[in-house]
Amino acid sequence: MSDSAARPAFETQLGQSAARMEEVLQQALASDTALLSGAPERLLEAMRHGALGGGKRLRPFLVEESAALFGASAQAAAPVAAALECIHCYSLVHDDLPAMDDDDLRRGRPTVHRAFDEATAILAGDALLTLAFGLVAEASALPAEARLSLVQLLSREAGAAGMAGGQALDLAAETQTLSEAEIARMQAMKTGALLAFAAEAGPILAGAPEADRKVLRRYGEIIGLAFQLADDLLDETADAATLGKAVGKDQARGKKTLPALRGQDWTRGELSRLVAEAESLLAPYGERAETLRQTARFVAFRTR
Amino acid sequence: MSDSAARPAFETQLGQSAARMEEVLQQALASDTALLSGAPERLLEAMRHGALGGGKRLRPFLVEESAALFGASAQAAAPVAAALECIHCYSLVHDDLPAMDDDDLRRGRPTVHRAFDEATAILAGDALLTLAFGLVAEASALPAEARLSLVQLLSREAGAAGMAGGQALDLAAETQTLSEAEIARMQAMKTGALLAFAAEAGPILAGAPEADRKVLRRYGEIIGLAFQLADDLLDETADAATLGKAVGKDQARGKKTLPALRGQDWTRGELSRLVAEAESLLAPYGERAETLRQTARFVAFRTR
Repeated sequence: MSDSAARPAFETQLGQSAARMEEVLQQALASDTALLSGAPERLLEAMRHGALGGGKRLRPFLVEESAALFGASAQAAAPVAAALECIHCYSLVHDDLPAMDDDDLRRGRPTVHRAFDEATAILAGDALLTLAFGLVAEASALPAEARLSLVQLLSREAGAAGMAGGQALDLAAETQTLSEAEIARMQAMKTGALLAFAAEAGPILAGAPEADRKVLRRYGEIIGLAFQLADDLLDETADAATLGKAVGKDQARGKKTLPALRGQDWTRGELSRLVAEAESLLAPYGERAETLRQTARFVAFRTR
Repeated sequence: MSDSAARPAFETQLGQSAARMEEVLQQALASDTALLSGAPERLLEAMRHGALGGGKRLRPFLVEESAALFGASAQAAAPVAAALECIHCYSLVHDDLPAMDDDDLRRGRPTVHRAFDEATAILAGDALLTLAFGLVAEASALPAEARLSLVQLLSREAGAAGMAGGQALDLAAETQTLSEAEIARMQAMKTGALLAFAAEAGPILAGAPEADRKVLRRYGEIIGLAFQLADDLLDETADAATLGKAVGKDQARGKKTLPALRGQDWTRGELSRLVAEAESLLAPYGERAETLRQTARFVAFRTR
């Protein structure tokens, strides 16, 4: 299952995609776009602080790669990838707020409410979320029906039944002890929903059949499960300098994670099992799906 | 310009529309919809607290009436009207937060962060905003192109270049003195953008020509200007029991309004001028636009 030889090349590929996404996001957050022209410069700066200059850009990469598997170009996928990243970043800006996780540091930099102020951070998050739907709707390289499907799915996966709902359940976990099943549900919503969207977006925007949508969606759910397990494991084993954010927070707050409940050996075994399931799902697509396979291994076995 | 005889009938019509919208919103916020099934019940309750049971529902009414002017039914317009109201309500939930206007009372009831908690209010607002775009995208009675145009326009008018941007400028006004031009720009964004969207949504969803979109948009901007002037005037002259919210807040915070700068007589004259402009804009549509004319008079001359 170890894949140390392939990792450097994969990480280069991921880094190149992230650099492209940075440019797409810079253009999407420029002062002269159809969606943003006339916006107050300070609010735009806060949005840029929250969305630019950091992160692995895993979600955009998944959108690009799931689109490529069905023949759609990175260029056609870019507005959807950028929209998803705007939503991911808005959620970080709001999660970091004093009333939520109260974090001062994100990717080694001050969080938006620390660099600006709390009200501006709320509004910058709101505006990033709002922008995302406009970016999908105006993606003129995509058929109208695909754009509408993507807006609907994104609304569901980012909203009360998806990421926002998962965050609400996570907050509830600070005052009550969740069962393993409840933890799994919370994480499937909080982390899994956007990753499932990322993987499913490819076949949707490429006009692939429903059966492919289902396979890619399940693949995205697996990525979500692996991502969260690896994240919780790193929260226990890594240090803040390596991660660029605070660690040991879950434990300090009494939040139970599956690695904390089941132990590190169980967690590593579960991660291997998830990678095997992802590889099995992707087998019918042959060599073309190699990057998605590597993505699963990267997410499960990453060290930062 | 006075229109006291027509008002009771108009207010009945507005009330009937509000009652219909309450039902549409109840259905949109039910636990078993495509967009929300599986959402945590407490978060849904907070969303309902923020969106149901109150308000004049002026924005949905404008969507319905501007759609009717071009032959579209209230049923076809309903999802767009509901989406717009979700966005209006999300903005109230976030504006009421301690880091923003810090209000305990809204429509005579506790604000969402008082009835629930601050984190839940942030997430409920986020989720209402997210839901709105899904509601427009899934409005299957409307042509795909109309839905996409509406998502794009709503993203612009609700985002950094519209309502959220106006709110950011309003916050800045607490620490710096705005010029009259800056106040006008802030209010055109904060209040005007969603009302302009409401009026322009009708011709868009009914597939009317671009020229009609422009007329209705200008009408919506006038409604926005009149709404804000009347609101600021009421903030100076009415009492909290009549309005169901705190009054005199702007003055207490040192925020300048146009009525405060120019006086009540100037304000009443300006309101009459705006109503006359709205009537002139709508003249080509004849009798069919009578409700929109009455709406302008209602907004300008309301007493609560």
